[in-house]
Amino acid sequence: MTLLRPALLVLALAACQHAPKAVADQPLKALTMQDVLDASTPDDWRRPDPENTLYLELDSGRVVIELAPDFAPAHVANIRALARGGYWDGLSINRSHDNFVVQWGDANGEDPAKAKPLGEAKAKLPAEFTRPAEGLAFTKLPDVDGWAPEVGFSQGFPAARDPKANLAWPAHCYAAVGAGRGMEADSSNGSELYVVIGQSPRQLDRNITTVGRVISGMERLSVLPRGTGPLGFYEKPEQRTAIRAIRLAATVPEAEREPIEVFRTDTRAWDALVESRRNRRDDWYRHPAGHIDLCNIPVPVRAIPAPEKKP
Amino acid sequence: MTLLRPALLVLALAACQHAPKAVADQPLKALTMQDVLDASTPDDWRRPDPENTLYLELDSGRVVIELAPDFAPAHVANIRALARGGYWDGLSINRSHDNFVVQWGDANGEDPAKAKPLGEAKAKLPAEFTRPAEGLAFTKLPDVDGWAPEVGFSQGFPAARDPKANLAWPAHCYAAVGAGRGMEADSSNGSELYVVIGQSPRQLDRNITTVGRVISGMERLSVLPRGTGPLGFYEKPEQRTAIRAIRLAATVPEAEREPIEVFRTDTRAWDALVESRRNRRDDWYRHPAGHIDLCNIPVPVRAIPAPEKKP
Repeated sequence: MTLLRPALLVLALAACQHAPKAVADQPLKALTMQDVLDASTPDDWRRPDPENTLYLELDSGRVVIELAPDFAPAHVANIRALARGGYWDGLSINRSHDNFVVQWGDANGEDPAKAKPLGEAKAKLPAEFTRPAEGLAFTKLPDVDGWAPEVGFSQGFPAARDPKANLAWPAHCYAAVGAGRGMEADSSNGSELYVVIGQSPRQLDRNITTVGRVISGMERLSVLPRGTGPLGFYEKPEQRTAIRAIRLAATVPEAEREPIEVFRTDTRAWDALVESRRNRRDDWYRHPAGHIDLCNIPVPVRAIPAPEKKP
Repeated sequence: MTLLRPALLVLALAACQHAPKAVADQPLKALTMQDVLDASTPDDWRRPDPENTLYLELDSGRVVIELAPDFAPAHVANIRALARGGYWDGLSINRSHDNFVVQWGDANGEDPAKAKPLGEAKAKLPAEFTRPAEGLAFTKLPDVDGWAPEVGFSQGFPAARDPKANLAWPAHCYAAVGAGRGMEADSSNGSELYVVIGQSPRQLDRNITTVGRVISGMERLSVLPRGTGPLGFYEKPEQRTAIRAIRLAATVPEAEREPIEVFRTDTRAWDALVESRRNRRDDWYRHPAGHIDLCNIPVPVRAIPAPEKKP
């Protein structure tokens, strides 16, 4: 009997294993995601810039965040200054709202007498909800999206744009990192950050400044006990999760940096990956959807492969 | 200064408080979700049928699952038989896959010598991926959906339909509960169940039998530590979460039943709630989206209100 038992195979996503073959040699529709990754070449991957990479260090391990200076240059510059100044070190994760966000910053920030000084960083920044669509690298998806005229990926970031209005913005997909704000549009400065942990809250798009996305370690944030106070804030200080440090990768010795690379989103291999998600070719699937939503496409991350030995 | 500090207000979802007013008296576009709930009448709420309600009892508390007999009658009948027979009592949650599913059942199910007997329940059932659209109560959303010709709600369940093919099916939104299966379409019997804990994996629609959805206690499942084995299964037995029992509410003494009610999805109040999510009117929002996705609409659940005292 070839049927594997449900207990282990249920929802199996494992693809059939084919011998790797260069993506360009194969018809676009025949591949599974695993096929695409197996057939990828070193040029299909990129290494995040250490100047645009944050390490959020928790007792449970490291969370890696890639920053988005193309979308939020002022916030990213401020976040770099905050990280260099050790602003978050010793602060905490203060909020865990089920199916919405986990958020960190200064739990005493409301009290000017107790708030941690921002150091070299600015207290006030302009809102960076959108940017001009012109000049932004953008790999457009053909699939319909209800939230925006066009959606696609810009250097790894799920994003949207409105060509008529010449505007583009990052999309609030799972793992998106944004800068908390108050009632005023320009009341964020990057010191208070949140990450999306559930169904993509795309209604936040164009309403808040998105500064990056988690590329590794999401599972250290998504499992945090939910807060029982209003908006998912913890009610007691001891329920918070301590932040050991948030460091800019550029300031971390090279040997301690996270040795990962990210799948590029502007290649033919990327198009093949998207198609493999649009129409699942795994044997398990009976009804390929013929559609993919922006927030259902994973951008693969892997350990940097060991250099091949010359024979 | 009226600006509240970001630390508490960030992403504030609280609506402006207006005096409650019957929903029918107000223009549809002016309401926030809180307005809609404040103005709701007892007829806008319903109490889940105890014959269609499961209690998943964990050390951390109770998870309430509403079953979907209109979509999966054979599976729901089998699940009732399994619960009545105490099938899951003493079994465990065996899988937690980040941004995908948490899954429970018999960790020894693969070994016929060790598998727990199904009792009165059937070992084999037909696949129930879809059902006829005709005859199904359905409140259609006007909003575009990439995955299906039409989407909407059927008695609380986010669902989709294809009128031309006369098919309808539940949608894999956050909190959807499905019956795990192997490679064969008809290899599920309801003993192995999973719940969606991340971005809605709508690609599973029409590929697996959906049997219900969690209406209370999702936060007890979504925070479970992620498994580090293939597909998010736990690698060691001690990492699993014990299931005290899964009981059908109808078999639980009334005093121990969960005293909750669910917002109806076929009323004018429901239409107002959907519109309040499509265009956020909270003061915090600067750019109402003008769109809502099926899986971004919460179906409110509340404690049954105390009866009003007659003066």
